[in-house]
Amino acid sequence: MTLRRVWPHPEVKADLQALRAAQPLTHVLTNIVVANFTANALLALGAAPAMVVAEEEAGEFARVADGLLVNVGTITAADARAQLLAAEAAKAAGTPWALDPVAVGFLSLRTRIATELLAFKPAIIRGNASEILALAGASAGGRGVDSTSGSHEALDGAKDLARRTGAVVAVSGEVDYLTDGDEIVEIDGLEGDIKPREKKIAKITYSDGTVKELPILCRIDTLDEVTYMNNGGILQTVLRDLAA
Amino acid sequence: MTLRRVWPHPEVKADLQALRAAQPLTHVLTNIVVANFTANALLALGAAPAMVVAEEEAGEFARVADGLLVNVGTITAADARAQLLAAEAAKAAGTPWALDPVAVGFLSLRTRIATELLAFKPAIIRGNASEILALAGASAGGRGVDSTSGSHEALDGAKDLARRTGAVVAVSGEVDYLTDGDEIVEIDGLEGDIKPREKKIAKITYSDGTVKELPILCRIDTLDEVTYMNNGGILQTVLRDLAA
Amino acid sequence: MTLRRVWPHPEVKADLQALRAAQPLTHVLTNIVVANFTANALLALGAAPAMVVAEEEAGEFARVADGLLVNVGTITAADARAQLLAAEAAKAAGTPWALDPVAVGFLSLRTRIATELLAFKPAIIRGNASEILALAGASAGGRGVDSTSGSHEALDGAKDLARRTGAVVAVSGEVDYLTDGDEIVEIDGLEGDIKPREKKIAKITYSDGTVKELPILCRIDTLDEVTYMNNGGILQTVLRDLAA
Repeated sequence: MTLRRVWPHPEVKADLQALRAAQPLTHVLTNIVVANFTANALLALGAAPAMVVAEEEAGEFARVADGLLVNVGTITAADARAQLLAAEAAKAAGTPWALDPVAVGFLSLRTRIATELLAFKPAIIRGNASEILALAGASAGGRGVDSTSGSHEALDGAKDLARRTGAVVAVSGEVDYLTDGDEIVEIDGLEGDIKPREKKIAKITYSDGTVKELPILCRIDTLDEVTYMNNGGILQTVLRDLAA
Repeated sequence: MTLRRVWPHPEVKADLQALRAAQPLTHVLTNIVVANFTANALLALGAAPAMVVAEEEAGEFARVADGLLVNVGTITAADARAQLLAAEAAKAAGTPWALDPVAVGFLSLRTRIATELLAFKPAIIRGNASEILALAGASAGGRGVDSTSGSHEALDGAKDLARRTGAVVAVSGEVDYLTDGDEIVEIDGLEGDIKPREKKIAKITYSDGTVKELPILCRIDTLDEVTYMNNGGILQTVLRDLAA
Repeated sequence: MTLRRVWPHPEVKADLQALRAAQPLTHVLTNIVVANFTANALLALGAAPAMVVAEEEAGEFARVADGLLVNVGTITAADARAQLLAAEAAKAAGTPWALDPVAVGFLSLRTRIATELLAFKPAIIRGNASEILALAGASAGGRGVDSTSGSHEALDGAKDLARRTGAVVAVSGEVDYLTDGDEIVEIDGLEGDIKPREKKIAKITYSDGTVKELPILCRIDTLDEVTYMNNGGILQTVLRDLAA
């Protein structure tokens, strides 16, 4: 991972335009709670999402897809078989795929399956501290989808996991980290008080120890959006007002 | 059930604040239609929802959760096994759980499973009249998710069911009832014409026969919200306008 | 199919009012991505949707429902068994049902099941050109949920399929076609530039070769709605603005 493109940057815009032009066929194996939102978000970005979930078809489809997402949030034994077949096919085809190990380390089936999935070399692993620590073999913890560890506690585990699997590992939390086991990007201040269009810093630590700080723009543009963000969404804001 | 707290009341507000402070880990086994909405509604209230649906994990998770919802709306045989394991674990752990017996009495698998689930002592059962009558063993009926009986016809069944299971039973319909088999709360006038911020009455009949009427405020605050409510939502209002 | 009612027409309005009065119990076997939206759209039209997906209940429910939708978008082997049982029960009961063969021709399980489903005589089949060609036995193609053929290329296949099954076949694409194998309705100009409340033409070709052109009104009423339509929805519009 050699970081050359940082938001906002003309090349990031070019990447997004290239993505829209390519309309990558994106195989999505995700949980029943977010399936609709994930489909719409991918469509919005210009991708062509398809939720092909049967074990009879998952490998078949992953072989021709341009990318694959595996999220174990509401995994069943049948889902697990489909996820393993899809990841295996993606690896064989050289197709990049992302692993979202929801609540791994906390529940048995998903912890076993996510660990098996690592053999198929995800390009991206994103999780909270508990999930990343569990995958790194360093710990088992968490509380449902919430982490019981701070993200900084998972940084060494994330680096180990990245080195071992070849993935870029993202750890979300009070500080967000991205690492390929060598370089580290960290973004602080996305939790807590946010102001509209606030400037933030992405701090890059290169493998030789040099540090670069890049200004980034938080695209929470209005005070209303700050309120929605803090409540977790528009629906949550409305319901909280009613329940207040 | 001794009713001490009635909305609007400072103690209800305190309850909601306590709920938000506690962030109860809420195990949700619900149908594929409402999973996303239910997750967002629980997040809005301050709970931490998790849809752990596999039979390999449902009991494991219910043992540590703070609460459990079982809704049989789109139940399959695998879901049924997970729901039974989760309810059994909740009972063993003393964790309160709620049963939503969608279309029970009308379809075979769910009627059998919901009846088996009663052995694990739900804290709350909520249904329409047909569903409650079916669970009470008094009748089988309904039409999909709609009741073919008026809610008042289900009141005796609801009281029996509450006494037998120890649950608080809620019956929705033209009058909404809540009972623990002993006391009854009824709220009339939530169907039909509603005015913004209309005052309604919650009528409480205590076990000794005394009656108390409490004023409550209907939080449909604006004329637009009345329109949305009458149409069943914003989307339905828009679609009906298009189809008009 | 003898076309007598074309939108906008007083009889179409009467049909919609009759639908709302009848509240048809609609059995929905659809994919996990659109289940919530489909339920709300049916409620908005005045139908009573129910997603009864278990193989233990699907036939039982289809026997009493007023209509059935089968969409193979996220089909699993268990879903397939439920869909076959439901379609068989619908045929036995004389209940009209619609088939949406998502990605048929491109993936194995769904192609086999959709082909088997044809024996149960759907009243409506709607698909893109690749899907209709695959069902017609003329081709296998497509790319995920997208067609690799133009809709005009599928018109002959659609007519064959309609004659063979007795269904009305709808082909979506740059031109939308409806045919019972005898008469053809085509609507052009719903893709590409659309103006608010634009007048379009529905061209009907009767079996004797005579052609009738009917003016229709495109109910994209405002410029905002044109933007939403072109982006695929409000959410997509917002996300694209953020990613722009």
